[in-house]
Amino acid sequence: MRENDGLNKYKIGVADTTFSRVDMFPFVERAVIESKIPASVERYTVPGIKDLPVACKRLLLDDQCDIVVALGMVGKEKIDKQCSHEASSGIQNVQLETMRHILEVFIHMDEAKDDNELFSIARNRAYKHGLNAVALLKGKDTLTPRAGKGLRQGKDDAGPVQGAT
Amino acid sequence: MRENDGLNKYKIGVADTTFSRVDMFPFVERAVIESKIPASVERYTVPGIKDLPVACKRLLLDDQCDIVVALGMVGKEKIDKQCSHEASSGIQNVQLETMRHILEVFIHMDEAKDDNELFSIARNRAYKHGLNAVALLKGKDTLTPRAGKGLRQGKDDAGPVQGAT
Amino acid sequence: MRENDGLNKYKIGVADTTFSRVDMFPFVERAVIESKIPASVERYTVPGIKDLPVACKRLLLDDQCDIVVALGMVGKEKIDKQCSHEASSGIQNVQLETMRHILEVFIHMDEAKDDNELFSIARNRAYKHGLNAVALLKGKDTLTPRAGKGLRQGKDDAGPVQGAT
Amino acid sequence: MRENDGLNKYKIGVADTTFSRVDMFPFVERAVIESKIPASVERYTVPGIKDLPVACKRLLLDDQCDIVVALGMVGKEKIDKQCSHEASSGIQNVQLETMRHILEVFIHMDEAKDDNELFSIARNRAYKHGLNAVALLKGKDTLTPRAGKGLRQGKDDAGPVQGAT
Amino acid sequence: MRENDGLNKYKIGVADTTFSRVDMFPFVERAVIESKIPASVERYTVPGIKDLPVACKRLLLDDQCDIVVALGMVGKEKIDKQCSHEASSGIQNVQLETMRHILEVFIHMDEAKDDNELFSIARNRAYKHGLNAVALLKGKDTLTPRAGKGLRQGKDDAGPVQGAT
Repeated sequence: MRENDGLNKYKIGVADTTFSRVDMFPFVERAVIESKIPASVERYTVPGIKDLPVACKRLLLDDQCDIVVALGMVGKEKIDKQCSHEASSGIQNVQLETMRHILEVFIHMDEAKDDNELFSIARNRAYKHGLNAVALLKGKDTLTPRAGKGLRQGKDDAGPVQGAT
Repeated sequence: MRENDGLNKYKIGVADTTFSRVDMFPFVERAVIESKIPASVERYTVPGIKDLPVACKRLLLDDQCDIVVALGMVGKEKIDKQCSHEASSGIQNVQLETMRHILEVFIHMDEAKDDNELFSIARNRAYKHGLNAVALLKGKDTLTPRAGKGLRQGKDDAGPVQGAT
Repeated sequence: MRENDGLNKYKIGVADTTFSRVDMFPFVERAVIESKIPASVERYTVPGIKDLPVACKRLLLDDQCDIVVALGMVGKEKIDKQCSHEASSGIQNVQLETMRHILEVFIHMDEAKDDNELFSIARNRAYKHGLNAVALLKGKDTLTPRAGKGLRQGKDDAGPVQGAT
Repeated sequence: MRENDGLNKYKIGVADTTFSRVDMFPFVERAVIESKIPASVERYTVPGIKDLPVACKRLLLDDQCDIVVALGMVGKEKIDKQCSHEASSGIQNVQLETMRHILEVFIHMDEAKDDNELFSIARNRAYKHGLNAVALLKGKDTLTPRAGKGLRQGKDDAGPVQGAT
Repeated sequence: MRENDGLNKYKIGVADTTFSRVDMFPFVERAVIESKIPASVERYTVPGIKDLPVACKRLLLDDQCDIVVALGMVGKEKIDKQCSHEASSGIQNVQLETMRHILEVFIHMDEAKDDNELFSIARNRAYKHGLNAVALLKGKDTLTPRAGKGLRQGKDDAGPVQGAT
């Protein structure tokens, strides 16, 4: 990640899809604004999740984003899970090639019992990963105080398990 | 993607197979013509879906296509799903290496209850992804007004879910 | 693919295994001979399908083959399917790196009810993909008149589905 | 791995997550301290297992670690297994590119019947792989006397099977 | 593979694990000795199968081995199969990058009904693949006379199926 001298803004990429039933972009944007870091947001919209990896790569390389949040929705069928696996594998490859993080916000349609819950999971997960993106921009130990705490995005935290060390 | 000065045509690649039971090329071609962008279409036909990735790569690199639509049909058996996964993974790799989109139009034979429905899904999905290819050629925010709208190709749109932001 | 001036022969690689219960090499060779293109055939034998990808790569790079036909047999167990997936993924990678086709002739032992049918599937698939290899050597539109025709290798063609365009 | 002249310290990277319900870092640290090799430990915390591969790569390349221990927890659902597969595949790629080991300490939540057992598995596996990391730093035959002994991390050793050679 | 002038020895790498319940190294070594080719053996021991790919790569590149035999054991659980898939995929990648063979000797614990059979499968498979490694070192057509013969490692050969050509 490039050094930030306090003057320059970070650039946060957001890639999203027309397939998704929830427009999650505003939740990421809100997280960035609320965290008050100097950052601009760049957006790239594609048809579906399998189109996200190359969009992420172009946000990172063509648009020089420091980090990307990839917003996608995954259908209920077995073939949809396969597609999400292909998308995620591509996203892994982009991260490794560019050495930069891409936070994956994938909402699985079978996670929710109805549209209300679907919306609520999407909002929560997108917002929290927006905050995670900001934390990762700040450095590799920003999240360390929260390591092993059983944090979750899209639902309640599971919490930590303690025992004898 | 190369800059287009209004004089030069875009080049859209279409890769298809002899395995497919539907000739989907005309539907992509129609989408390109109806969208009235200056574009030529380059076609590459291979035996089956696992031969598509290298065909796509050659369309992008040898024939200098700006984008590719990959048309394939997937059988009903478990092994056919595995083949589609291998093809899709290859297509992911080509996209990432070339930094250009490949829109995958894969028709799964178990999506349709009969030949009529199979044809109809194929036509709809190929045509709509032809339009998506044109949109992606125009820029990364062309599809943004439709982000999160629950759009589908090959069937009816699922539509957006709204809630409190 | 290198240009062929009519004097030089094409070089067709064939990779096969000691695991396979059918020696499929002669069927590919017959397809090449019957098609009367100027071509020599180079053969590489390995233990099993997971050894095929590197053999294919060596046929393409060390032996300068223009195309390769990979002949393999896959057992009935779940782990055998996994092995075939690993082999196929490797073959995808070789194709993309070399920009040349590798036609995969994989016979799954659970496709056939007895040894006779196994032999017959293997002969048919190897022969037809031998012909496909020759067609692909000739150019990217040689198979185009047969696109969307529901062709099959190893069994009867499924045939095309037509409808209103 | 770089040569160690006895003066320079080894550098051991530890990547962990906020998703994990157990903070496993101290167990790795204890293994390193108890083994009394000259080593410093570098830590990188990310949200979940799919963020680990790029963190590992940055520990190896940016921070010049000699080896990395990747600490992750995997949920009980099928989709969680898929995520762990994507994370592990990414970790494989990082190892191969950097030619250095990354020891994966992944705790699957369905391995344990309750929180106590979960903690105990996590502690045992993290500690033992901390020792394995130290052994691998020393050379490729350090673990050879223990080859084929049925060793396990996170549970009791399975032990060796002997027979006629 | 480097040329061998009859004076220089081949170098055969063997990578194995502490997880395996059978020490398979001696069986490979015996195959090499009995085949009487001029060869030395280089060994690298790691904790488990997912650590094998980078060990293989180091044997091939750092130690200049001409070929590697990778000895691993795979547990009975579904997650163990996933691990073996990740290990095998990594091994594929190493082969393709180095253009050299890695013969995978993976023993699945659910292949055997008891410890005796487990040992016996391991011994047979490791020994036979030791012989295969020697054959592949000699050239790409050394195994050709045995192509399509239904050979197996770890169990009895399945034998060839013949029919009308």
